[in-house]
Amino acid sequence: MNNFIFHSPTEFVFGRNTEQHTGRLARQYGARRALVASGGVSARRSGLLARVCESLTEAGITVCQLHGIKPNPTDTKVYEGIDIARTQQCDFILAIGGGSVIDTAKAIAAGVPYEGDFWDFFSSKATVGMALPVGVVLTIPASGSEASGNSVITRTDGLHKLSLRTQYWLRPKFAVMNPELTFTLPPYQTACGIADMMVHVMERYFSNTTGCELTDRLCEATLKAIIDEAPKVMNNPGDYDARANIMWAGTIAHNGICGTGRDEDWACHFMEHELSAIYDVAHGAGLTAIVPAWLTWMQAHNIDKVEQMARRVMGVTPADVEGAAPGAKPRLVALEGIRRLVNLWQSLGLPTNITQLGIPEPDIDTLVCKLHENKGPTVGAYVKLDHTMTRQIYQSAINYQPQ
Amino acid sequence: MNNFIFHSPTEFVFGRNTEQHTGRLARQYGARRALVASGGVSARRSGLLARVCESLTEAGITVCQLHGIKPNPTDTKVYEGIDIARTQQCDFILAIGGGSVIDTAKAIAAGVPYEGDFWDFFSSKATVGMALPVGVVLTIPASGSEASGNSVITRTDGLHKLSLRTQYWLRPKFAVMNPELTFTLPPYQTACGIADMMVHVMERYFSNTTGCELTDRLCEATLKAIIDEAPKVMNNPGDYDARANIMWAGTIAHNGICGTGRDEDWACHFMEHELSAIYDVAHGAGLTAIVPAWLTWMQAHNIDKVEQMARRVMGVTPADVEGAAPGAKPRLVALEGIRRLVNLWQSLGLPTNITQLGIPEPDIDTLVCKLHENKGPTVGAYVKLDHTMTRQIYQSAINYQPQ
Repeated sequence: MNNFIFHSPTEFVFGRNTEQHTGRLARQYGARRALVASGGVSARRSGLLARVCESLTEAGITVCQLHGIKPNPTDTKVYEGIDIARTQQCDFILAIGGGSVIDTAKAIAAGVPYEGDFWDFFSSKATVGMALPVGVVLTIPASGSEASGNSVITRTDGLHKLSLRTQYWLRPKFAVMNPELTFTLPPYQTACGIADMMVHVMERYFSNTTGCELTDRLCEATLKAIIDEAPKVMNNPGDYDARANIMWAGTIAHNGICGTGRDEDWACHFMEHELSAIYDVAHGAGLTAIVPAWLTWMQAHNIDKVEQMARRVMGVTPADVEGAAPGAKPRLVALEGIRRLVNLWQSLGLPTNITQLGIPEPDIDTLVCKLHENKGPTVGAYVKLDHTMTRQIYQSAINYQPQ
Repeated sequence: MNNFIFHSPTEFVFGRNTEQHTGRLARQYGARRALVASGGVSARRSGLLARVCESLTEAGITVCQLHGIKPNPTDTKVYEGIDIARTQQCDFILAIGGGSVIDTAKAIAAGVPYEGDFWDFFSSKATVGMALPVGVVLTIPASGSEASGNSVITRTDGLHKLSLRTQYWLRPKFAVMNPELTFTLPPYQTACGIADMMVHVMERYFSNTTGCELTDRLCEATLKAIIDEAPKVMNNPGDYDARANIMWAGTIAHNGICGTGRDEDWACHFMEHELSAIYDVAHGAGLTAIVPAWLTWMQAHNIDKVEQMARRVMGVTPADVEGAAPGAKPRLVALEGIRRLVNLWQSLGLPTNITQLGIPEPDIDTLVCKLHENKGPTVGAYVKLDHTMTRQIYQSAINYQPQ
């Protein structure tokens, strides 16, 4: 097990009607003038935006607003938010939404007190050493951004999608999480969120660090719970308990607990970031279009964890590979596990290759080139993938079918 | 799933040599004059006390000291600590040790700024609304107190052992956790710690709250990891990874994550507190003397979770009860699970009834009387146990043997 620091100071306020506490919480964490950031449309339509603003006003907080933040959020809205926050002297950023809004809010929070260009943090030219406090009212469980110190932003000129990771500064002070707010999410968005949180766990699970039995088990537990609850929310969008399990799983998947003491991988996320930066696809769907090809490649190059996941998470048993030659069994177990994962994602309406994602002829040269330009000569850690290997995986993901 | 707040702001600094960061961490959390609390003997002998004090001094922190804190800590040391901290104007309490030292440190931290008697917090006459910051250098993984907002103290006059629970105020600011510091723990103490953390998970696992699949799975994952690693630390006390898994499991078991969204039980802890208050036995051993009888009683009165634990944690399969009548199977599965747990604890050298604990003729009348005097007419939630039921369980625990 590696040495580690685990520090997740966010206060999670979870359950029915919890958004009514937003004003009190923001005040408690020092807000006097809050910049409220959101996508705008659904929060306005549902009345959530009005309810939250009322709660802030009742707590004596002046409200400024920034709306229109889109999926795969860009630097444009970050610059706009920094301007408003500076002009209006905001001392707090409140995100109402999912990962795109929260990540934008974090970038604004880091940018406001910084004299240079906020993009310096994302391009590793500067380190965050101060930020405005951020609060969250979560409406889309997926990104885990409510619990992480990270932010992912796309630069409009040149389509660079980069992530910023901080141990402490960008962790939200509080996150209000009412599962009822997710009842009206479109099915495809619900499914994409489920895929995203599953892959957040997998990026930590696929590790060569030995002696991490506890975190292996915690990863497996979180994946199994998501797999059990996913069909329930798809079949009955108003199933409170299933929505609650999925929402809380999104947090557990990404607050860092599943990665304590081990190297993490993140190759699939980085490979997906290039896809969604160029083609503007939903992040979760981009992931399910990459991961099966990645897993199948890994099965041939570093099988241990692929096989372990098949057994412990996907429930593949010795009976499933009965009769096969003993030497062939681990491979067959691993492939059966991948097949079950593909079936699950397909049953949720998700693509499991790049063609199904709606990109039959992806520009592999550009994807590989930008990936390594942004991330260096190799990506990932479970196997360090150079440009030849990432090209193989992108290529096999175009029309991937389970073996 | 119930509404909940989860807030675990402690910074965990985990791994080899991490105690060298104590001074920097204490300074970061505001220490100028720290009261260092410990048992004294082993921390002095190992040189840890000197190393930590040096780290504090190097960080510019003045060191005051309070040693001689014993297992099942009493109010005497708390009063002594409050006096020293007030006289020496300490602004920080640093605990070096396990649960007894940490719980004493927390009680001192709450007592220093309070005008009345600190015991008011434990007897529910007052609520903690302010406390000095507490830091921890953990040497005994067991209590989970490094991650909790709780403290358990015994009142010397009358043998009341009471627990204080706070959501926020008594959570340590940081916990330094170096598994190497646990290599020299005596085997019995290691085993008692393992039992304590297992029962911390079980107190949360045994719940009637429905729709908590994720926390069920997290509880099961933590228990399974402990069960896998426990024989390794007993057989090879210097196995770093096994020690690290056990140490981190003790934190996960008690930082609250395993209980999010559900009612918790705690009857076994309360029943044990009466035992160790009167007979001064090790808390972990007191638990393993009570829990098998409690589980067997529950198997007859509310079998669901007993059976689920047998299957999902203890690995009981349909093959283990093949041939039995279908209606009898859940009971047989549950009993086989209890048997395996008893075998595990016995293999670690732990007692599994009160006689083995060294108390062949416990004063059941006094135990039952004090339990309900301290905790009210019923204890627990999985089944609310009145004095008739707790008497039955204490009674059957005297010479308990698995069925």
